[in-house]
Parts: sequence; C-alpha cells; structure tokens
Amino acid sequence: MFELGVVYRNIPRADSRVAEGLGALGSATVHEAMGRVGLMKPYMRPIYTGAHASGTAVTVLLHPGDNWMLHVAAEQIQPGDVVVAAVTADCTDGYFGDLLATSFQARGARALIIDAGVRDVTVLTDMGFPVWSKAISAKGTIKATLGSVNIPVVCAGALVTPGDVIVADHDGVAVVPSAQAQETLDKASAREANEAQKRAKLASGVLGLDMYQMREPLRQLGLRYID
Amino acid sequence: MFELGVVYRNIPRADSRVAEGLGALGSATVHEAMGRVGLMKPYMRPIYTGAHASGTAVTVLLHPGDNWMLHVAAEQIQPGDVVVAAVTADCTDGYFGDLLATSFQARGARALIIDAGVRDVTVLTDMGFPVWSKAISAKGTIKATLGSVNIPVVCAGALVTPGDVIVADHDGVAVVPSAQAQETLDKASAREANEAQKRAKLASGVLGLDMYQMREPLRQLGLRYID
Amino acid sequence: MFELGVVYRNIPRADSRVAEGLGALGSATVHEAMGRVGLMKPYMRPIYTGAHASGTAVTVLLHPGDNWMLHVAAEQIQPGDVVVAAVTADCTDGYFGDLLATSFQARGARALIIDAGVRDVTVLTDMGFPVWSKAISAKGTIKATLGSVNIPVVCAGALVTPGDVIVADHDGVAVVPSAQAQETLDKASAREANEAQKRAKLASGVLGLDMYQMREPLRQLGLRYID
Amino acid sequence: MFELGVVYRNIPRADSRVAEGLGALGSATVHEAMGRVGLMKPYMRPIYTGAHASGTAVTVLLHPGDNWMLHVAAEQIQPGDVVVAAVTADCTDGYFGDLLATSFQARGARALIIDAGVRDVTVLTDMGFPVWSKAISAKGTIKATLGSVNIPVVCAGALVTPGDVIVADHDGVAVVPSAQAQETLDKASAREANEAQKRAKLASGVLGLDMYQMREPLRQLGLRYID
Amino acid sequence: MFELGVVYRNIPRADSRVAEGLGALGSATVHEAMGRVGLMKPYMRPIYTGAHASGTAVTVLLHPGDNWMLHVAAEQIQPGDVVVAAVTADCTDGYFGDLLATSFQARGARALIIDAGVRDVTVLTDMGFPVWSKAISAKGTIKATLGSVNIPVVCAGALVTPGDVIVADHDGVAVVPSAQAQETLDKASAREANEAQKRAKLASGVLGLDMYQMREPLRQLGLRYID
Amino acid sequence: MFELGVVYRNIPRADSRVAEGLGALGSATVHEAMGRVGLMKPYMRPIYTGAHASGTAVTVLLHPGDNWMLHVAAEQIQPGDVVVAAVTADCTDGYFGDLLATSFQARGARALIIDAGVRDVTVLTDMGFPVWSKAISAKGTIKATLGSVNIPVVCAGALVTPGDVIVADHDGVAVVPSAQAQETLDKASAREANEAQKRAKLASGVLGLDMYQMREPLRQLGLRYID
Repeated sequence: MFELGVVYRNIPRADSRVAEGLGALGSATVHEAMGRVGLMKPYMRPIYTGAHASGTAVTVLLHPGDNWMLHVAAEQIQPGDVVVAAVTADCTDGYFGDLLATSFQARGARALIIDAGVRDVTVLTDMGFPVWSKAISAKGTIKATLGSVNIPVVCAGALVTPGDVIVADHDGVAVVPSAQAQETLDKASAREANEAQKRAKLASGVLGLDMYQMREPLRQLGLRYID
Repeated sequence: MFELGVVYRNIPRADSRVAEGLGALGSATVHEAMGRVGLMKPYMRPIYTGAHASGTAVTVLLHPGDNWMLHVAAEQIQPGDVVVAAVTADCTDGYFGDLLATSFQARGARALIIDAGVRDVTVLTDMGFPVWSKAISAKGTIKATLGSVNIPVVCAGALVTPGDVIVADHDGVAVVPSAQAQETLDKASAREANEAQKRAKLASGVLGLDMYQMREPLRQLGLRYID
Repeated sequence: MFELGVVYRNIPRADSRVAEGLGALGSATVHEAMGRVGLMKPYMRPIYTGAHASGTAVTVLLHPGDNWMLHVAAEQIQPGDVVVAAVTADCTDGYFGDLLATSFQARGARALIIDAGVRDVTVLTDMGFPVWSKAISAKGTIKATLGSVNIPVVCAGALVTPGDVIVADHDGVAVVPSAQAQETLDKASAREANEAQKRAKLASGVLGLDMYQMREPLRQLGLRYID
Repeated sequence: MFELGVVYRNIPRADSRVAEGLGALGSATVHEAMGRVGLMKPYMRPIYTGAHASGTAVTVLLHPGDNWMLHVAAEQIQPGDVVVAAVTADCTDGYFGDLLATSFQARGARALIIDAGVRDVTVLTDMGFPVWSKAISAKGTIKATLGSVNIPVVCAGALVTPGDVIVADHDGVAVVPSAQAQETLDKASAREANEAQKRAKLASGVLGLDMYQMREPLRQLGLRYID
Repeated sequence: MFELGVVYRNIPRADSRVAEGLGALGSATVHEAMGRVGLMKPYMRPIYTGAHASGTAVTVLLHPGDNWMLHVAAEQIQPGDVVVAAVTADCTDGYFGDLLATSFQARGARALIIDAGVRDVTVLTDMGFPVWSKAISAKGTIKATLGSVNIPVVCAGALVTPGDVIVADHDGVAVVPSAQAQETLDKASAREANEAQKRAKLASGVLGLDMYQMREPLRQLGLRYID
Repeated sequence: MFELGVVYRNIPRADSRVAEGLGALGSATVHEAMGRVGLMKPYMRPIYTGAHASGTAVTVLLHPGDNWMLHVAAEQIQPGDVVVAAVTADCTDGYFGDLLATSFQARGARALIIDAGVRDVTVLTDMGFPVWSKAISAKGTIKATLGSVNIPVVCAGALVTPGDVIVADHDGVAVVPSAQAQETLDKASAREANEAQKRAKLASGVLGLDMYQMREPLRQLGLRYID
C-alpha cells in the first residue's frame, strides 16, 4: 500500500463534471449523501474566507519537515486537480508557499489540501489559490527524503485514493471515491432539491417536530413536557 | 438536576431590556462586573467576523452525535432567546445547519451557542444567524436519543440556567444568572461610563502607572528600575 | 537570567530602519534567511485579517492571571517598539484590552505579541492595533505580583532579548536578534530579489523539478515513475 | 450562583454509606445508572495507579494561579469528604502539594479533584492521598484573591453542588447529586448484580448478539453479511 | 470503500506466525523496516504498563457514541485476531468495557485498538486484556446505528485493511499490510540481528559518530567545532 | 544566538555537587526557590514511574524529524550531564531509542530531556535511563540536517544554557542557570528545612489558616462565613 519513492503517472480520475457538480453541493450535503463517512477531521481549515473548491485528487505522501515531493507532484497535476498532501507524522511546518502555489496554479490545480502547515497565506489569498491545512506557519522545510505521488494516502483521518473527488469549503473537506462519485452526486442532488421546500416551510414557522413527524416517536421514547 | 427526557415549557426569563443592555456592553465588561466568573471557555468562537448577540437562554442537553433535541428546543424559542446547547460528552459533529437555523430564526432566536460543531457556516453567515461553537464540521448527526430542554446545563465550562442572560461577541460568551442581571447591568454600566475618561487620559499619554497610582505599591513590593 | 521585580530602562534597540526592512520582507522570508530558527509557535495568531507589524522588542514577564507588569512596560515603550509578553505558566486569560491598547498606541507601540489571551478585539481591530496571541478571552486579570520588564523572555517557544527585531504577519512571528538584524536583512533581501524571477518562470509553466534541477538527485535516491 | 468571597459552613451532605456504596460500584456503573450524565471530562486522570475514592463534595472556586482558598476549604472538610476544586479559567499550575495534602488528610479528606495542576505527586503517592487533575506541574501559586468554598461549581465540565457524591477511579470522575444518590445506588446495584451472570455467559462463548437478542433489530436496519 | 451496514465474514488473514514474529520485534523495529510509514498517531496509548500484542486485524467502523458494531464484530473474531475500531468522527466515549472484553477474550482476541475511549480499565488490566485507545472514559454509548465490520478503516491516522498485521506495544501501534508481512518480518529481523552488536559497541564507549562513519559527511555539510 | 552547524566543546558546567543537591530537593522546591520561573511546560512527562534525575545540561538543537545531532551530542557528554534537546518546530517523532540510550549511558549521561518523542521505552525503562518527553512514538527519524550542540536552546518553553542545572522528576523539569545554582540550592534547602515542622503541625490537625496567619488578611479582603 504505502510504497515509498514511487510516482504513478497515469491515474484514472473521476469525471470532472461530476466533481464540479459535487463541489456545487458542498461538503455537508455530499457527506450526508455518502452515509456520513469520508470526511477529513474538522481541524482542516481554509486559509481565507470564501474559499471553496472541488476537483480530482493528486495525492502526495510527505515526511515531516520535507516538502520535496510537492515539486514532484506539480508535474502530475492536470487542470481540475486538487492536490492532497499527507505526512507520515504530525507536523505543522509551512510546506507550501507562494512559489509552489504559482507552479500549481500554472498547472491547473484548484486547491491544496495538506495535513500540515502552509505559509505566504496573504499572497495565496491575493492569488485566489485556496489551501485547507491544519496550521499556518512560516517554518520552512528541507528537500532530502523520498515520499510518493499518487498512492493512496490518509490525510487528516480520511483515506484518499488518487482520482477521488475532493469537495472543500468552509464546512470541511469531503472525499468521494471515484467509483461512488456519480451515485453520490445523484443522491446529494436529490437531497438538495428536497431542501428548498423544507427551508420555505421552516421559514414560515412550521416546526421540524411537525414537518418531520417527530412528535410521536419522541412521545414513545418517553419525552415529557412540564409546564 | 440532570433530568433526561424532559422539556420545561414555561421558564422564567430575565428581562429582555436588561439582556439588551448587557449585550451592548459586551462580554468582557459584563464578566468583569460579575467578579470575573461565569465565562465559557475561550475555545468557543463565533462563525463569522462581527458576530455579536445577547438574549435569554433556552437550554438543550444533547448526546454525542445526536441533534434530535434541537428540534424539540425550536418549539420553546421565544423572540429574543439564545439557544444554549450542551453535550454529555466531547463531540465536534455538525449538529446545526441552515435548515435548523431557518427554523430558529423564524421563531425569533438570536443565536446559537453550542459546545460542539456547526455546519453550513457560509449560509448561516449570509443569513446573519450567529453561532458560537467549538468546531465547524460537515459531519451530520442522528436522531435517536432523548436529552432535555430547559434544564440547567454546563456549556463550555459554564453553568447555564434557563432564562439566564447570554452575552456573546468576539471576546467570548458570558452567562449572567437572571437574578443578578439587573445588578450586573448597573455595575457594568458604571464601569463603562468610567472607561471613556480613562481612555481619553491614556490616549493623551498619561500612564496607567500614574492614573491608577500604581507606583507606590509596586515600589513597596520591591520593583527596581535599572538604567 | 530570569530576574523578577526588575525593569531595565535603557535597552539597546536594533536599528529601526532594519526593523522596517525586515517587516517588509515578512516572517517567512526572514525566518528562512536566519536558517529556519527563531520562530514562535504557530498557535500565535493575529486578531484580525491583514495584521502585520515589525519593530524592536520591549519584553515583559508576567505571572498567570496577572497583567500588572503591562502597565509598567507601557512606560518603557518608545515609538517603533513591539511589546512581547511571556507568562511563567500556560494561561489564556485576557491580559490586554482597549485601555491598555490606547496607552500603548499613545506611546508609539506598533503591536503586542502575547503568549496568553487578549480581549476587546473588536475595538482593537477598529483602532488598528494588532495583537498576536494564543487565545482571545474576555477573562480579566488581577494586579498582585511582580514580573519584570526588558529581561530576556521565552515567548511561544522563542527566546526574545530586549531590542530584538520582531516581524509579525499572517504566517507567524519571527524574532531576529539585534546583532544579526542587518545580516538577516541582507540575506532576506537577496532571497526576495531572487524570488521574482522564479515566480515568473513557474507561472509560465516551468516546473520546480527543472528550475531547481531536482530530477537527477531524485533519480539517484531511487525515485521511480510508473505509468 | 457564583458568589465570590463566601464560605458556606453547614452544608447538607449525602449519606456517607450511600457514598461508600456508590464508590464500590465505580464511576462507569454509577454514570450508567444516572442515564449517562454527570461525568467530568476524561482529561481528569488519577496521579497514581490504583487510585479510587468516593465521598461527599466540599467545593472550592479558585482563580488562575492562586490556591489561597484551598486553605480556607481545609477547615470545612469533614471525614469522608472529597474536595472538588474548580478554577475560573484554564490553568495548569500546581495548586496542591504535600503540605496541603497532609492537612487535608488530617481533616479526613479522601481525595482532591482539581481542574488544574497538582505537584509533589511522588509524596502524595507515598501518602496514599489520591488526586484527579488535568495536569501535573511543579509551578507554584500565589495567595492574593478571594474565591469561595461550598458554592456550586463547574469542575471539568460537570456541575458539583456541595454535598454531592463523588466517585473517582481509573475510568473517571462521576458526580451524583445528593438528592439522587440513594436511587442511583439502587439502580447501579441492580445493574451490577445483573452483570455477573452476563459475564459468565460471555466468558463461555455466548455472543452479545444472541444474549441481547440483537440479530433481529440489526437485520431490520439492513445489516448484510457477505461471505 | 466505506460501505455501511456490511459485515465481511471470510477475510484473508496474514500468516499467524508472521504476526507473532513481527510482534516479538516490536512496533519501532517493524515501522523502520516498512520505510517509516504505517504507524498510528502517538496519542494511542496502552491502558496498562507492560501491554504488548500482535495479531491479525478484524476491523470495525463505528459512529460517535454508538458501540453496537463491536458486538457484531465479536462474532467475526478468530483466535489470534486484534480488533481495530475506527469512528466516523472524533469521540472519547467509553465504547468498550469488561463485558465486551470478556466476550472478545473468549473468542480469542488478543487486543483492542480503538480510536476513541475505553472503560473498566482496572478490570481489563486484571484480565490481562490490553487496549490501545485515545482516551479512558466512563461515558457509555448507545446501540442505534449501523457501521460495518471488516471493511478497510482509517484508525488514528493509519489505514487498516482486514487481515493486516497489528503490532502494538509501549512505542505505539504499527500496521503491516498482509501482502508485505513476510518481507517486513525478514527486513525487521535482519535489522534486529544487526542491533545487538551495535549495542555492544556503543556500551563499550564507541561513538555513533565513528561506528556509523558520520564525521566526514557532517564535516562536508559544514559542522564546526569550537573549543 | 541560534548558530546552526556549531558544536561548543568546552562549556562551563555548574558544580556537580550543587546539581546533586538541587536534584535531591526536587523540581517543585527548586522552582519555588527561584521565584517561580524556569520551569518547562507540564506536557513534559517521564517515561516511567519513579524517574528522577539531575545534572548539568548539554544542549542540542534539532530539526523536525532529524536526530543526527544527538549522535554529535553524545561525544560532548561528560559523566553527570543531562542532555536537553530542543526542536526548531513541533514534532512528536521518536528521536531517541535504546541504541542512543546505550551510548549516552556509556558516556555518563543521567537523562534525556527532549521536546519531541522517544521510543523503545520498555527497554529504556529496563536500562534505568530516564527520559522526559512530550510524546512516545515509534516513528523514526532521518539524518540529513545540521543543528547545533551546546548553544542556548528553548526546550518546552524554558531557556536552557549549556551547563545549567536540570532537575527532573514527576512534578516536571526545572532549569537553574549555573550562576544562580548555589544561591538556589541555599534558598531551596532553607525552604525544605522549614517544611518538616510545617508538615508535622498540619498532620496534627493545625490548619494552614492558623499556621500561616491567614484569617486576618482574608477577613480584610471581605471573606464571609455563612452558616
């Protein structure tokens, strides 16, 4: 599984329109449609307000304090990709800054998801290149050890296989296996369609208790009202 | 104390104008006026810049990963209330999203304070419905277990009794027992009145050392100046 | 080293133009130029978006929950200084608010760096007085114990000697010993000059792999490409 | 609620035999019998292996870095009490050491539960005086500010009213309101009685799936077995 | 990938003698032999001193606060297995206690690795049933939602596929994919054999600098000695 | 200050008998005698029960995930030294195991204090070589970058200058600058002498309130007793 020193060049990617569609629905809806699995840990936060992105995963496995493989990954980026970087141990170093972002953006990457730190965040914000990370840190890294590109990785608690769909926004980062992408899009779209009318009802003052017919099951479980 | 499966419907609430007044003074001033007690832990953060709210507490006790009682709580909201949600164990799930927010807002709630996670934060921001939480997470919840509504709860380290005044802003979340609300407002207002002239003096270059007559007590404790 | 109850009045300060120059380059570039040392921990975050500051350090050693020495420090501030406050134990209390900020600003301070909490952050934001802290908290402090002013302190994991240059922005807080300030500025400037052309190349699609001639060393370490 | 500068001398205490009985059952069983509420956060850990204690709560509210009120509390201890100490803000200082432990033990205290730090833990271990704390720290404290003794406090996320039963062991710290102590003991004892035969069955290889008749509800929810 | 509501009954398991052999070498040696990948996060700690275990993984995916699937997993245990339990969100609840341990032990399980909490730790210690967990908590769980058994899971940051070898001791928890188990055992054994003579040399006072011939590369990198 | 790539060979060390004496008094007493400064953060914990050590500091500055300089440091160890290792960024990797421990022990080192992770802890325990660390982790490290030996370092929040006295036990790790070592020993000894009779009084039931004459100052601050 965890091969080191390997770069897989030709990875199958989920359909880009499906990725686009999932991105429009957002990480919360997508995650619900998947059965409430496949989310990264909530410590992953975007570096600027308004950040949202979706795309197909190019994965990188890094060692603590060493960002060399991000340069190797850059060559594997295709337009519409999101780079997902995992580290073999906890590290908050700033692996990624404005130069790498320039390169990634030139290659067509839509975002970086990194289970470590990022820096030059003011420039990245100006460039409109979104990053979800667990830390922001000026700390630089070295280039000494081999990791891998496009192997399955565990990033912030979620398994990411190259080509999977990544949906990232202010609620978090969801990972959709490419084999489930179309089905998840269908389910999530149905869910979304459903929500507009629910929202209207709730806005008019109807209670969820009534709209979802919760009163009877709550009563059966023994809920008591006391005046 | 911790009754489960109970909803108290008619709770006494602190005076809404007092709640308003305390909100205008802010959590730091209110907390000082109370003798530096009654604050929630500083991990409670607002979901958007500029969030501030005050009101009377409707409390909810939830179980980890289960948001059912928030629907039950919605019915107990009166205009001017702030919903305060505690969980019986640490949990970062996203208990609350745009549908519940629509319902809460329709009932007149001013904010949600939740010792857990929240989601749909971009929509909540657009709606202007502020939430203070310990996490933001797309992770959804189930509806399977009974908690309670309007019992005393411990939220983020603070005891909240239904009807208490909640003051929430960028400095944190303060809880004022309803019996102390008026007295706290009086003290906090006096404190505030006092601050304007202090601020003017300090802005003119007068030192706190002189304004507060600290030099002598510092000298007595042995403070030495070395050139 | 850690004298208590002492205020050093006449401290040598790094050259203000050098401090200015380092500030313009930013914490990440400065930290790289120093050999990747001298950074505070990444938990130190600015209280508002866009905050950046540089200047010469006036240091303060505080005890947990006691902000008295910040008043003593105010008198030692000269225009262009950045106050750096360490605490003898972990504490998230709000040591600093709008009154002290008014005083510090009147004395010419450019920022506060505090390994504890801060409050009144909305007012501080309006005043344009930036603070880097580990917490935001409405919790107030007492005035009962002596610490020191202008002794070397450890703040958020970094040693700060009075007069050192502090560079703080969204990437973090870097500390440059005054004896190394000019040399660091020279190195950092050279580094920066170098970056513009690198950025242009990368933006045109040239890969870091080629620009930095990484392919050969990677091959020698055994990196394999698999199609 | 949170009166400062007050010592309540004559507090009603739960029945000591009930406290004893609950202690024998342990925190997990007691907490289950209460409906899974009333537990302190799991960061509260005993300072030595084998620590377990139960008793009636004498409560103390402390300020960060100030242990004065522990001396005030010592006088209020009666044999069989457990001292529960809360702090108005997060603090890891070592509030309690061998001298205070000697005094507490002389007064008949069975344990200290403190939402802060403790020190002299080797001596405390030798003395057999158990402490549950969130930190161990050599850091000393001052004696400058008034808190209170025997008011309701929030300790590690749990509300503790003076006289409540505290049950502390390696699984954590449970709080039983005195009004519910007898009923909780009855429920917990029944639960415990029940467990011996369950344990025997499970030890013989019977599965929980069968013993608890879980197969049918799991099947109805859709659980599928794949060979 | 993350199917919910599914139990795979016939999973291929790594060779039990290989698992035994890897266990004897320990997690640090095994992890080195794998190229420094495949470790769980260091927050996973054994519940008692001296705990060590190895075996083949039976995996479980749980929801926060719900331990139902552990009962389902019990039936799938074969002698020599180690149960690895992941949760779909952060949770510290006590999912596992003495009754389940009795059942697991009766089925031949050697240990539980759970990315959540455990309770009844004193009894588990007496039983000699080791658990590696991220928390110890008396907090109980419900039985309401379907997870899965024997699907690939991410536990404490590591991907675990059913049948993988788990090596757990005081240094942490290593995961060896079954396809790599024999090769890893070979490499780790060679490594271990090598260590005895190194240890003897170092014990006699020979420096690593000389034994590993580090002086020259250090000199080339510019290391300077100053007297 | 933070020179990289430098090894200072002849450092002045505090008197070994003073280090011995301070070690006998323990970290809490020593820290009090210093005025409550100079402690490492309480996250530094010993790897086994009963660990205690004192000695003179040999310091090392490491980079994240790279333990090379520990081999360089080994050569600088003299009998009675304690090695203190700082890292330029947060890292929990296992920098130190049984081979390095064998080497350190052969050179006469008494302990390692490392603001990172350690491994082979079972063997280290058997060897009786104590380590205070912030993590235990099987994760190995590389040997690629230069740090320094015997420069001043910040370790777990405390400044350590080569030759300083380190006192480490279950209460934490105290650092005594060598220039203050004798004076601190004198003060700490006096403090200790004083404690025996205090302990006897307290054990006999005398209250701290009376022994320290606290009743009057408490009354003056307004402490009220309510029956």
